[in-house]
Amino acid sequence: MPKENMLISSIEELYTISKDKLIGEHGSISINFANRSHVSASNDIVGNCLQEWLPDWFHYLGVSIKPGPSTQVFPDFVAEFNDQAYEVEIKAWNCNNNPAFDIANFYSFLETTYEKPNKINANYFILGYKPASDNFAEGFTLEKLYLKKLYQICGPSKKYPLNIQVKRNQPYAIRPISFYKEAPKSFNSPTEFIQAVKETFIMFPNPRIAFTPEEWATRVLSMLDKDDQIAIR
Amino acid sequence: MPKENMLISSIEELYTISKDKLIGEHGSISINFANRSHVSASNDIVGNCLQEWLPDWFHYLGVSIKPGPSTQVFPDFVAEFNDQAYEVEIKAWNCNNNPAFDIANFYSFLETTYEKPNKINANYFILGYKPASDNFAEGFTLEKLYLKKLYQICGPSKKYPLNIQVKRNQPYAIRPISFYKEAPKSFNSPTEFIQAVKETFIMFPNPRIAFTPEEWATRVLSMLDKDDQIAIR
Repeated sequence: MPKENMLISSIEELYTISKDKLIGEHGSISINFANRSHVSASNDIVGNCLQEWLPDWFHYLGVSIKPGPSTQVFPDFVAEFNDQAYEVEIKAWNCNNNPAFDIANFYSFLETTYEKPNKINANYFILGYKPASDNFAEGFTLEKLYLKKLYQICGPSKKYPLNIQVKRNQPYAIRPISFYKEAPKSFNSPTEFIQAVKETFIMFPNPRIAFTPEEWATRVLSMLDKDDQIAIR
Repeated sequence: MPKENMLISSIEELYTISKDKLIGEHGSISINFANRSHVSASNDIVGNCLQEWLPDWFHYLGVSIKPGPSTQVFPDFVAEFNDQAYEVEIKAWNCNNNPAFDIANFYSFLETTYEKPNKINANYFILGYKPASDNFAEGFTLEKLYLKKLYQICGPSKKYPLNIQVKRNQPYAIRPISFYKEAPKSFNSPTEFIQAVKETFIMFPNPRIAFTPEEWATRVLSMLDKDDQIAIR
């Protein structure tokens, strides 16, 4: 499909075309085993299947994509347009609920971004689906599609500068805020996000991490585009 | 199906019938979305779908089952035979690999079993599948089916009395050992398992847990059937 490839020259264009063609579309997942069929009714499965389906779609549109090292590791895939590579994560959630997908384990995120600060600039393709009936017996429909930068889906929580899952006073996953609402409380810039991560790191010190919150923030900030480099407190 | 229900009077019988009818059977998972079909190729999805399919199967056999509180929480479901209730977890793994499913978060497990020690006696229905070809393009086949008690799938690791996932010197998930191999290193009794959990708890103290390793072990042991109550070191 090289012809179609010529048409799509940026990730924003890929997003616009996908939004146009996919929103309102119907889907279903069926498992057939031992000659007995079952339509999946679990958010985990619908979400994971959509995450698996989307790269096929991009491929069909003629976009050059390479899968990431594994489904467990960031990014899900790398898309190339005019020799520019974009790291893309795919997330999906039942938009009858608040999004509760995990963005990353907090300490793993600190370590990964300390090594590769440009991961702060990752693109998120986010699919919001709804069951087609009361449950998933009749499948689901795609209601929403978003293309967001990481900082645009993160924000403060009531208790912490960054919305994170905390168990027994230990930080676990970084979680999205309700980024799709009107006037969401998401961060306005990568710098705001970095500041919030730094403050959260100060609240949850970890002697097993080889750098300080200050060192982390300085290093990550130094990699941002000049435009985004506003003085950090 | 009340007639079939009369036939199956114990969880062991349910296991034997399932093993007889399901091993060697073929399955596949397809997602159809926006009129484009994709066969799932991910272990996560195959495993989760099999976990969802199996209760349908038990139901079909006429067994009275009730789902657990949620897919995230133990147990997956409760099966009743002759007014006796069995808590059952379903796990699945690609048996080309070592099993790496999570049994429970270590500290959550301590807290849950401190409140409800009989959870130590949970039954595990475990499905081992393999891709039908080099990848999952032609689906999968069921190779193995096990009915095990919790202690029978757990064992020591090289580093710890209990095989657990450890990150940054913190325990995360309890993981199974290779319980299906000849001469597996699994525990021989609930008491051995409890002893190993206790020793692991001593290695990873947690000031946020309201009881000591000794208190945990004493309480859990007191609930075991008399047969299993061998003196604990």
